[in-house]
Amino acid sequence: MSQDLSNTVALLARTPAALDALLRGLSVAWTQRNEGDGTWSAFDVVGHLIHGERTDWIPRAKRILELGEAREFDAFEREGFKGEGKSMGPSLDEFARLRSESLGELERLNLRPEDLERRGKHPALGVVTLSQLLATWAAHDLTHLHQISRILAHQYREAVGPWSAYLGVLRCDGHSAP
Amino acid sequence: MSQDLSNTVALLARTPAALDALLRGLSVAWTQRNEGDGTWSAFDVVGHLIHGERTDWIPRAKRILELGEAREFDAFEREGFKGEGKSMGPSLDEFARLRSESLGELERLNLRPEDLERRGKHPALGVVTLSQLLATWAAHDLTHLHQISRILAHQYREAVGPWSAYLGVLRCDGHSAP
Repeated sequence: MSQDLSNTVALLARTPAALDALLRGLSVAWTQRNEGDGTWSAFDVVGHLIHGERTDWIPRAKRILELGEAREFDAFEREGFKGEGKSMGPSLDEFARLRSESLGELERLNLRPEDLERRGKHPALGVVTLSQLLATWAAHDLTHLHQISRILAHQYREAVGPWSAYLGVLRCDGHSAP
Repeated sequence: MSQDLSNTVALLARTPAALDALLRGLSVAWTQRNEGDGTWSAFDVVGHLIHGERTDWIPRAKRILELGEAREFDAFEREGFKGEGKSMGPSLDEFARLRSESLGELERLNLRPEDLERRGKHPALGVVTLSQLLATWAAHDLTHLHQISRILAHQYREAVGPWSAYLGVLRCDGHSAP
């Protein structure tokens, strides 16, 4: 389907509560372990989502509306969350608070259909539209929910014994861009 | 980590609320679409989880405790959910209700550490332990959360434009066993 603002907002509004329901109160054996050297824990992913909320989505939407292609987006630092946050509960609270603020800002932009076709410049990908940015915001939530479910499942990789043959999540390598 | 009953139960107890927070009230444009012919929608996945709760996990745990390897598990029908349920809200309610019942039954089994090493017979995989069954129950939730996040992201595959290069979830093929 094409990007639809109400569908995008509906998804974006649900992610904090979904992560909260999944992660709050789980032991650190689930949430602080990663998939090996150089990979992220579920806690790290929440930190990355917080950092994106502060520096990525709404700032880029405003850049498009204010300057179009004249000034490319500031680069987003994927590891920019490092050192932020101490434990899962406060990080989940912070993500929910920031997401709610972001959606309030999005609403105040009062976007018209023609605004969604406005263009901006990504430092690596080149010309993109506001519609693509908003679709990516939602899909980015989903890529990290996909990652968190994989990180958690990885902790039971040995424990499931022969059933590993049936569990697709254990064969997912993350597919991340290098 | 090895299977730990409290960690397993903590995860199993959270899945219904996580799916509820993600899926309840989302438009059918998100929840009833799949990834192409022969694939499942998010709604189908919830139906599959309901069916597993009824016929797979607790019945197999009891089979191990009652008959050990003497009688193999009944086969689990992956598509056995077909025709069950009409819409997302009632399906989420039903999954939450059944999961809560399952965890009550698990608690009443009052498993001791030595019980976890008891063995049963899977019709295709051969000898498995109760501990492996319980770990698989949790990892099975995660494989389907992984799947749901991928199915939802698929609906925005075109809408994200050039950002698809950065979204690992769009390169996941599901890794399912044939």
